[in-house]
Amino acid sequence: MKEQDTSGDLSLDRLVFFSDAVFAIAVTLLVLDIHVPDLPRVISVADSWRMFTDQGPSFFAFVLSFAVIGRFWMGHHERFRALRHFDQRLMWPNMLYLMAIAFMPFATAFLGRNLGHFVPELVYNVSMLVLSLLAYWLAWTVRRASGPGAPPADGLDMIIAALVCIGLTFVVPLLSQWGMFTALLWARLERRLYSRANASAAAAR
Amino acid sequence: MKEQDTSGDLSLDRLVFFSDAVFAIAVTLLVLDIHVPDLPRVISVADSWRMFTDQGPSFFAFVLSFAVIGRFWMGHHERFRALRHFDQRLMWPNMLYLMAIAFMPFATAFLGRNLGHFVPELVYNVSMLVLSLLAYWLAWTVRRASGPGAPPADGLDMIIAALVCIGLTFVVPLLSQWGMFTALLWARLERRLYSRANASAAAAR
Amino acid sequence: MKEQDTSGDLSLDRLVFFSDAVFAIAVTLLVLDIHVPDLPRVISVADSWRMFTDQGPSFFAFVLSFAVIGRFWMGHHERFRALRHFDQRLMWPNMLYLMAIAFMPFATAFLGRNLGHFVPELVYNVSMLVLSLLAYWLAWTVRRASGPGAPPADGLDMIIAALVCIGLTFVVPLLSQWGMFTALLWARLERRLYSRANASAAAAR
Amino acid sequence: MKEQDTSGDLSLDRLVFFSDAVFAIAVTLLVLDIHVPDLPRVISVADSWRMFTDQGPSFFAFVLSFAVIGRFWMGHHERFRALRHFDQRLMWPNMLYLMAIAFMPFATAFLGRNLGHFVPELVYNVSMLVLSLLAYWLAWTVRRASGPGAPPADGLDMIIAALVCIGLTFVVPLLSQWGMFTALLWARLERRLYSRANASAAAAR
Repeated sequence: MKEQDTSGDLSLDRLVFFSDAVFAIAVTLLVLDIHVPDLPRVISVADSWRMFTDQGPSFFAFVLSFAVIGRFWMGHHERFRALRHFDQRLMWPNMLYLMAIAFMPFATAFLGRNLGHFVPELVYNVSMLVLSLLAYWLAWTVRRASGPGAPPADGLDMIIAALVCIGLTFVVPLLSQWGMFTALLWARLERRLYSRANASAAAAR
Repeated sequence: MKEQDTSGDLSLDRLVFFSDAVFAIAVTLLVLDIHVPDLPRVISVADSWRMFTDQGPSFFAFVLSFAVIGRFWMGHHERFRALRHFDQRLMWPNMLYLMAIAFMPFATAFLGRNLGHFVPELVYNVSMLVLSLLAYWLAWTVRRASGPGAPPADGLDMIIAALVCIGLTFVVPLLSQWGMFTALLWARLERRLYSRANASAAAAR
Repeated sequence: MKEQDTSGDLSLDRLVFFSDAVFAIAVTLLVLDIHVPDLPRVISVADSWRMFTDQGPSFFAFVLSFAVIGRFWMGHHERFRALRHFDQRLMWPNMLYLMAIAFMPFATAFLGRNLGHFVPELVYNVSMLVLSLLAYWLAWTVRRASGPGAPPADGLDMIIAALVCIGLTFVVPLLSQWGMFTALLWARLERRLYSRANASAAAAR
Repeated sequence: MKEQDTSGDLSLDRLVFFSDAVFAIAVTLLVLDIHVPDLPRVISVADSWRMFTDQGPSFFAFVLSFAVIGRFWMGHHERFRALRHFDQRLMWPNMLYLMAIAFMPFATAFLGRNLGHFVPELVYNVSMLVLSLLAYWLAWTVRRASGPGAPPADGLDMIIAALVCIGLTFVVPLLSQWGMFTALLWARLERRLYSRANASAAAAR
């Protein structure tokens, strides 16, 4: 019996470390999308500085996606803390979620090279929405596998923030990603609604 | 004695995590094969949308290979759950299997850039066959190393499905990979035959 | 209670292995920046040798950055040894630190292709300064999370050495990175000042 | 006391998994060096087949380097099995060894694109020699850190085989890597000499 448990834990470890590896690779591959300028042998400092700063949009996309993927990794990390045992039903939701993570380097490169264009901005924001939805689905699966004591699935804040970004794309494509910061607002709202629901549930008892 | 066991387990951990890392990298590298369009400064939304959707075949190849490698990873995961101790004889079969996994990004890129062409379709489907055969061999090795209680080696479903894909390549190259879905059918058949064999073995006793 | 501890440890494991993966990928991606010469079918040995040695600056940048990232990994390793439990407050400082690590392949490629140019040299040295500062911040966070017995945060030696490199960039850009070797000097100085401070603190008691 | 041991083990785990990650990435990056042919829309099967088989040298280099790095990983794996506790003195030898591993994708790409040329063949074989020497040095360091019961450092077989390859480069560059197979011979010789030395040492007692 104890052996079976241990085996279950190694299975969970593998799932978790496989996910971590995909996160880590996706986040580190982002840098490959930044174009490395080849300076001519003779060039003024001003010109070479401009060739460097021309990559500005790519730097922005790198920092943005690093923060986004990092934020999602933290969510994954917190979600799986509640989990004690491996559950076969986690496999495909987690795999689909990782597929969305692994897609981010493309969305990032497409955005970084064409910042402000409608299509790349939309592709990026829709990628974030898909990611948020898959994260939410995974959170539900983990909660179901964790047993009664588990915290409720969250992640609604990211979904709403991604929707805000998509809305902004139709108005100011260039600034649409800043909509992600509204996630802080939705997270606060989510917690307040949740604690109110808890309070009224306790009052009803 | 106990120390030796622990050492054996760390050896097994290393083998497993090394394999996981190769899987994770192979699956994440797939995205690098999707060409990132550079849009001109002035371009209509329709044109930039077309430049994006031109990558359709690469997106298809990305999703397909992610699912295939993901499916093989789950098989590897399930196979190694039965294993309690490290076994030196697992080394080369596992290494050859990982070589076939690491080759998939090439087969995927070749397919994605030339979807529907006979040669890339054949190369992709033969890669899946080789992968299935090596997975089957590895499953046998793991079973031998696991001791009497281990589940029987499976994986015949993937081998037959890959053969179906190869057959389809000669008829409709473009659709040949859909043959992988027949694996669901073969898996069901395999389980039925296996349980019938078990039943008759029990009756003979 | 014990379960919570175990969960905390798996959380710490994930944080540590995620960081290790980012370090490992960043350090291995460096090699992709070295241009691989395509030799014509007929070429003298002297000419093909020259085409190989033309990559000299890239080889230098590869070895330099491997040593730098390796050195920072060792610091991260030593720092986290003192840690017993996972702490949520480590998350963002560690993530920002990893972002600086993941940026190094770009700084390395930019340097390797344009060795001796002022701007790439400055970008590289400033990257090292940012890395050192984030490492120092992380070291403080780890110390706060480790409890009273933890060794003091160090890393001042790397900060000062990076400043020396930046200073050298304005004088001899080509040789500015050698300023990193002065870190050995500052480390010795730091230890001497620290033990003197400890001695006088003990005398005061 | 026990806590310190556990900390030592986590340190060892990190060192080992960091090394595994570098091995896994280096081995999986090899595939990126194979050029992916872009077929024109209308092309005969024979022509597209030729465009595929033109990558033959790259496939050879991929398989060769996968086997070489895989073989070195197994050596690393076996060597570290004997180790019970983390030792600070392992850090730099292991890091230099990983640098040589991380360099292999370049040597492989250079070889694969220019198979049979003297310079790339020499660069590849010298890389293998350097790798073998660093592996031997690391093996000695691990042995010193493992305590009295540890198996003797081996790896002389790989050093001699790499020297054979270098020698062959001056005669038949194209076939020089096959010299690695002589490692099987040297390994047998090494074991025989070692057991004879053991026997005479036992007789002397």
